[in-house]
Amino acid sequence: MKQVAIILSGCGVFDGAEIHESVLTMLHLERQGARYQCFAPDIEQHHVINHLTGEEQDEQRNVRVEAARIARGDVASLDTLDASAFDALILPGGFGVAKNLSDFAFKGAQSSILAAVKESCQAFNQLGKPIAYLCIAPALIGHIHPAGTLATIGNDEATAQAVEALGASHVNCGVADIVVDDTHKVISTPAYMLAGSISEASTGIEKAVQKLLEFA
Amino acid sequence: MKQVAIILSGCGVFDGAEIHESVLTMLHLERQGARYQCFAPDIEQHHVINHLTGEEQDEQRNVRVEAARIARGDVASLDTLDASAFDALILPGGFGVAKNLSDFAFKGAQSSILAAVKESCQAFNQLGKPIAYLCIAPALIGHIHPAGTLATIGNDEATAQAVEALGASHVNCGVADIVVDDTHKVISTPAYMLAGSISEASTGIEKAVQKLLEFA
Repeated sequence: MKQVAIILSGCGVFDGAEIHESVLTMLHLERQGARYQCFAPDIEQHHVINHLTGEEQDEQRNVRVEAARIARGDVASLDTLDASAFDALILPGGFGVAKNLSDFAFKGAQSSILAAVKESCQAFNQLGKPIAYLCIAPALIGHIHPAGTLATIGNDEATAQAVEALGASHVNCGVADIVVDDTHKVISTPAYMLAGSISEASTGIEKAVQKLLEFA
Repeated sequence: MKQVAIILSGCGVFDGAEIHESVLTMLHLERQGARYQCFAPDIEQHHVINHLTGEEQDEQRNVRVEAARIARGDVASLDTLDASAFDALILPGGFGVAKNLSDFAFKGAQSSILAAVKESCQAFNQLGKPIAYLCIAPALIGHIHPAGTLATIGNDEATAQAVEALGASHVNCGVADIVVDDTHKVISTPAYMLAGSISEASTGIEKAVQKLLEFA
């Protein structure tokens, strides 16, 4: 049975991991015969957003502690992720990827990413193991993979330009489809960058998981 | 297209709505051709649990504001739920049902439930509209429906006895199955009261949604 690591970035689309994408990732992995283990960095969130009003709340939350809500308690520290123990890696989206795992939400083409995320992803890559990036997570690809690696965040022009400036090669993609870089075993799909509903997000994520497990 | 109301009780299995069950509810409703709108009471959570350690955290969170994380921002106040505008109602589980929507987690057979929850559910029932209760949510059935209404929380003996003491008639049920009260159009399924994995939870929830939409 294939073992897949999932990196979560909190709990909630506006300041953490997108919840639907995270849960759909788990569902499709299991339905396609794989097992998963969640990981998250043990750091403070960039900020906390009231998801009802969209406003910042004056409080602090920890990325791993909040990710534990999605993982029903079982989320290991990202520092302990050993690529040799897994067959593949997948990163759901949400602003947590662009605010906690990186500062892409604020700095775009000038962004940097968390060292632990870069090291974990590169370790999978160096072992020839596939990685799937969902939604806005492909914004990390330029930091991790060789220049020109194929990536998609859907079709938003400004975001695509920033992804390209960081080194990836952006390909426009519909919500129900995936972009695959066969050379580097990198998969991406727009998910809620384009999805208008949970079933739309599910279709692309299901395909991404299928390709991930084919490569694994 | 059938319109279904979902009542959420926060965001996270130990102090709010069970996230997987909530997301699977949305997914299966959409896949079976229905639309949904989320609702939650605008009240403080009973408490906040650190989902990594299981310990209580010294802070306050609002049930509706946290539920907005699962609902991607779109969760109306439970006070505004108008049963005449919907075809059916569904309540995912999680300790939020037993801590925020009721005090079943603390008082069991002596528990009471939030007036707004009771009124909303009874309004659906009085209009002949079906309701599905997932996981621990069937513990509310005795407060809402006529004595003897069929309910299941799986097979935990102490919990089943408390459910019966509150007026419902408990039926043991496997994780992949549902219990249906045809007279009162009440459906229940154990979900994470028994599920050992997300795909197990998904199977029972998919069946509950299917029966709910048949009744609707």
